[in-house]
Amino acid sequence: MSKMDNLVSLCKRRGFIFPGSDVYGGFAGTWDFGPLGVMLKKNLTDLWWNFWVEKRDNIFGVDAAILMNPRTWVASGHVDTFADPLVECKECHGRFRADKLADGLSESVSTDEFLALHVKCPTCGKENWGEIRKFNMMFSTHVGAVLPDDLSDESSKALVKKSTAYLRPETAQGIFTNYKNVVDTFYPDLPFGLAQVGKAFRNEISPRDFILRDRECSQMEIEYFVHPKTWETEFETLLKETHTFLTEKVGLKATDLRDEEVAKEDRAHYSDRTVDIMFNYPNGEEELMGIAYRTDFDLQNISRESGKSMEYRDKTTNEVLTPHVIEPSVGVERLLLAVLATAYAEEPVEGKPGETRTVLKLPEALAPYKFCVSPLLKNKPDLVKKAQEVYVKLKEKYTFVTWDDSGNIGKRYRKQDEIGTPKCIVIDFDTLEDNTVTVRDRDTASQVRVKISEL
Amino acid sequence: MSKMDNLVSLCKRRGFIFPGSDVYGGFAGTWDFGPLGVMLKKNLTDLWWNFWVEKRDNIFGVDAAILMNPRTWVASGHVDTFADPLVECKECHGRFRADKLADGLSESVSTDEFLALHVKCPTCGKENWGEIRKFNMMFSTHVGAVLPDDLSDESSKALVKKSTAYLRPETAQGIFTNYKNVVDTFYPDLPFGLAQVGKAFRNEISPRDFILRDRECSQMEIEYFVHPKTWETEFETLLKETHTFLTEKVGLKATDLRDEEVAKEDRAHYSDRTVDIMFNYPNGEEELMGIAYRTDFDLQNISRESGKSMEYRDKTTNEVLTPHVIEPSVGVERLLLAVLATAYAEEPVEGKPGETRTVLKLPEALAPYKFCVSPLLKNKPDLVKKAQEVYVKLKEKYTFVTWDDSGNIGKRYRKQDEIGTPKCIVIDFDTLEDNTVTVRDRDTASQVRVKISEL
Repeated sequence: MSKMDNLVSLCKRRGFIFPGSDVYGGFAGTWDFGPLGVMLKKNLTDLWWNFWVEKRDNIFGVDAAILMNPRTWVASGHVDTFADPLVECKECHGRFRADKLADGLSESVSTDEFLALHVKCPTCGKENWGEIRKFNMMFSTHVGAVLPDDLSDESSKALVKKSTAYLRPETAQGIFTNYKNVVDTFYPDLPFGLAQVGKAFRNEISPRDFILRDRECSQMEIEYFVHPKTWETEFETLLKETHTFLTEKVGLKATDLRDEEVAKEDRAHYSDRTVDIMFNYPNGEEELMGIAYRTDFDLQNISRESGKSMEYRDKTTNEVLTPHVIEPSVGVERLLLAVLATAYAEEPVEGKPGETRTVLKLPEALAPYKFCVSPLLKNKPDLVKKAQEVYVKLKEKYTFVTWDDSGNIGKRYRKQDEIGTPKCIVIDFDTLEDNTVTVRDRDTASQVRVKISEL
Repeated sequence: MSKMDNLVSLCKRRGFIFPGSDVYGGFAGTWDFGPLGVMLKKNLTDLWWNFWVEKRDNIFGVDAAILMNPRTWVASGHVDTFADPLVECKECHGRFRADKLADGLSESVSTDEFLALHVKCPTCGKENWGEIRKFNMMFSTHVGAVLPDDLSDESSKALVKKSTAYLRPETAQGIFTNYKNVVDTFYPDLPFGLAQVGKAFRNEISPRDFILRDRECSQMEIEYFVHPKTWETEFETLLKETHTFLTEKVGLKATDLRDEEVAKEDRAHYSDRTVDIMFNYPNGEEELMGIAYRTDFDLQNISRESGKSMEYRDKTTNEVLTPHVIEPSVGVERLLLAVLATAYAEEPVEGKPGETRTVLKLPEALAPYKFCVSPLLKNKPDLVKKAQEVYVKLKEKYTFVTWDDSGNIGKRYRKQDEIGTPKCIVIDFDTLEDNTVTVRDRDTASQVRVKISEL
């Protein structure tokens, strides 16, 4: 099995990440977090929030609804342009992204251009294609007292159409639409940022690569509002701080990261500069996150669509301007996978030739549990009682402590290694005499004796 | 203005809660959290998570996708029964919940029963009603490479129908569908619980009452799996612990809470006992949360629909059984509103006859900021510099510290009172000489001198 397969398997086996709706055979592009996955994810989002929002003075949080007024997506251009080229095989009715069926095709491939390549259907092998149609990746729904299936007369049809709304395809617009609310209530000086952690939804035609390309994901995003004259310096600063966050806080290796300056023709239409931070994932290099200079594209769109001014008056100079925006944006799941891939190791067990152990060398701040407390043997009431005392005392102090009395001590170490617990504390017969315990280190597997009072 | 109006106004004015999509004139039933609202909400959900999951040994977290396999909602009964009676006025095309147009009607009111009451349309005053139709409150969407508007032929129609999925109308099923995953990976002893904080969506015909009845809300929910023989005791224990959480942790007054034993005919069909915990909201008593004994209704449904066994084998006795479930469930927004209503006060300002102050007496654990640091005067560089030193030092230690040098000191106190900051620390000329500061208490408005080193 590949490293990626092993990682997916460990995630399921140890309760980090399960396929979504697993009990019903799954639901493509969705994933559920199990007990350890929830802890790891919360640690990761809390770390991000602490670094970017809590520890700083000029980035504020917002949390917008997923269902937004549909004019949001007209203004942003998503209704018109957030689309993939969809093509259907008329033989087997398989549907595909046309631009993925042959090399060198762009998202704006035309039907003629596509047909000229004489591509065979990957499912049935025939060549009988329909027209390429624009497939909008936004999930649509209907909000209000409307029966979506009722197309019985013109008035009902109009009602169904008018009630159409979307699951937000990005969190960014939830921030931009609150820009004016925040300016009017907090009057922050430029530069200032608005940060959000929240879900976004994209109806990917072919979700794949575990949690890398899913239909429902969480984003951690900052829109950083700057004076247009200063964007280049602010961009560099945010890029540098992002690398500090990724390496020093999250624990990614600098050698696994690479900045890619995105060429003009590959950038989103709203961006005047984009740097993609690429990560060396087990299956190859992929985009981990991006930093985009979005100019005043979004605020101008909102101003036009809403008829409201998005201008900002500088309190010191009285200059009136529309701020420009730099956006560092990362998907929680992509970052989580980078964390897991970095932490995952298979190593020979010292002193046991031929045996290997799997270990998640997670940074302490991210590990679901910081300590595991165990009695050496579970059938010795004295040991169990003493171990319980230690467990209760530690849990009061540190919260993230787990108890494990399953199997034998070797198996417990293997399990705690696999879930990334940095320290295992074992209560044995010596403990009963001298109040010391064995503390075993996850990464080195070395053991030391420590007094209970010094834990 | 009523207390509720004042609260809504404060929430907007101070950046706690804005109407959703405000810049586009709003979007009914959605709300956005501003900088202070995000902090308050995070403190509240973290408090719940810490109390129920982190500090306990037998409740584990899960976090399921919002988009689930649609069989979930067939099994749970939502596709068939999660519906309100919708009636349309044929004159003005206004649509209403029939059971809300007259007293004493149930959700299963028939067209004949309704017409016999000769209700007038609340919008146009006429009496010309259509048939009552079942309006399912689940938001539906389409997942996969399907163009929902393409109903051009039978094969396309079938595809659109087959691709129908729903935004989850409750978080509970995201837990139940993961029950087997958790049992298979963690082998927990009974009783054990699975907890989830996440969004749920309901297409309310008439969203109203601020954040009390919204279309998109967050739920904090536990499904607690017990041996069927013990459900009555476990129910009582969870009810008692819930009250401990609400009063001792969240700071609600016991006198604002009332347990209502829900009568058989008013209970959800799956429940053999439900206690609603009612709260004395500013506009009257309303349900804050509920605890329901759901029996093995959900696990049996899932077992039938999926063909997989949901049985559990007791590790000690080897007894094989399907666990029963007790569900304490609370909406984040409902709890947040109870917190705000409890904290909100208008009080005379001591020593200033005729003046009143508005104050949010939030428990310290929930307050967005714990301290505010200010220089007495903002145009004295010595004071500002000293205050900045104190601010930086405190922020390193406590994180939740804010800086305020706006307006005069009286206005700053009013502002910090309104956002619930427990302590204001003011640096004045004495500070420069003796390194003491004024610490003002939010609730009593009393001031004491404290050495900087003792803060």
